[in-house]
Amino acid sequence: MAKARSGYPEPVERLIESFGRLPGIGRRTATRLALHVLKGSQDEAKEFSRAIEDTKERVACCSVCYQLTESDPCPICADERRDASIVLVVEQPSDLMSIEGTGIYRGVYHVLTGRIDPLAGVEPTDLTIGPLFDRIGDPTRNSRGVAIDEVILGLNPTLEGDSTSLFLAEELARRGVRTSRLARGIPSGTQLEYASAAVLADAIEGRQVLGDETFG
Amino acid sequence: MAKARSGYPEPVERLIESFGRLPGIGRRTATRLALHVLKGSQDEAKEFSRAIEDTKERVACCSVCYQLTESDPCPICADERRDASIVLVVEQPSDLMSIEGTGIYRGVYHVLTGRIDPLAGVEPTDLTIGPLFDRIGDPTRNSRGVAIDEVILGLNPTLEGDSTSLFLAEELARRGVRTSRLARGIPSGTQLEYASAAVLADAIEGRQVLGDETFG
Repeated sequence: MAKARSGYPEPVERLIESFGRLPGIGRRTATRLALHVLKGSQDEAKEFSRAIEDTKERVACCSVCYQLTESDPCPICADERRDASIVLVVEQPSDLMSIEGTGIYRGVYHVLTGRIDPLAGVEPTDLTIGPLFDRIGDPTRNSRGVAIDEVILGLNPTLEGDSTSLFLAEELARRGVRTSRLARGIPSGTQLEYASAAVLADAIEGRQVLGDETFG
Repeated sequence: MAKARSGYPEPVERLIESFGRLPGIGRRTATRLALHVLKGSQDEAKEFSRAIEDTKERVACCSVCYQLTESDPCPICADERRDASIVLVVEQPSDLMSIEGTGIYRGVYHVLTGRIDPLAGVEPTDLTIGPLFDRIGDPTRNSRGVAIDEVILGLNPTLEGDSTSLFLAEELARRGVRTSRLARGIPSGTQLEYASAAVLADAIEGRQVLGDETFG
């Protein structure tokens, strides 16, 4: 069916079009969302429109690690208490947020802004892989000018994530930098019975030796 | 899991919250949408935020038929070529748009802004039923001051839509106004084989007599 103009007042039509440009939002959902905004309070609408403008105007990528930030370098890269010699590589800002949420990691990050995916037309040059190698090769390009000792690969455990990791691991080895990846195994809080074969295979292959100190 | 602050820059966080207030949009989707806005062009973001503001500022309900409009009365109520003596009652502005899309209907409308649904706490007084009766009782309240001859009930063929229609039909009969409802039957372009029992029952009960002129 052709996308005929709906007959809604012109501003509503424009709002429907704006919502419809978002990923996974079709014409029907966009219409529902636009009518919801129309029904909501003036204040909420104002807040919404300001949030959009502020996001575009005030938020950018950190010039060192490419995470989203209002200041450059970002607060993590600028933080004296973080160990800038360890860099954890993730695909997206949201991955970084998840890891920060644990409060365990004290190094810095590098956001690739995606993963290599030739079928979707994503080549290494479309990602921030060049800038990662720059950080490694030239300490002045890294957070607070610190030389990098170790790179931890924290990409998603998917086909594309794994092949990107493989590519990075080879390139990093050539540059002589120590490289590790996040451990794979049984997820805490689940039952063995329901783990998939791939998860169990990872867990067996990567089994962790328990020293005498563990069992006393 | 508690909704902890995500660690995104503050404007992004506000945008995620605004998206999250929309119906059917959870935190995860809201985040995806906000990051999409961030990735898009400055112009697109500007357009989006202006569309939200314009929609709230310039669009309101027609004081006669309650459809969305930038002018009051709306273009349909004001149109000299429309027959204001026939009023088609629909639940939502989107229903009105669908019917207008056919180009067949030449009367005017009345948007109820919902249907009676006691379980969801929607009573007749929450809808524009009072204003509908006002239009019928006092021609000066109707589009272009025309007296109403017929009301067509065009509510959705659902449990709530049907019971709202029943309520309206009784009230309209008491006011002595001719009342009809949209025909039910086999939807054009489908196959009998796949029609539900309810659709077939409607089609049999509402069978239409074919005059001699039809078969020549």
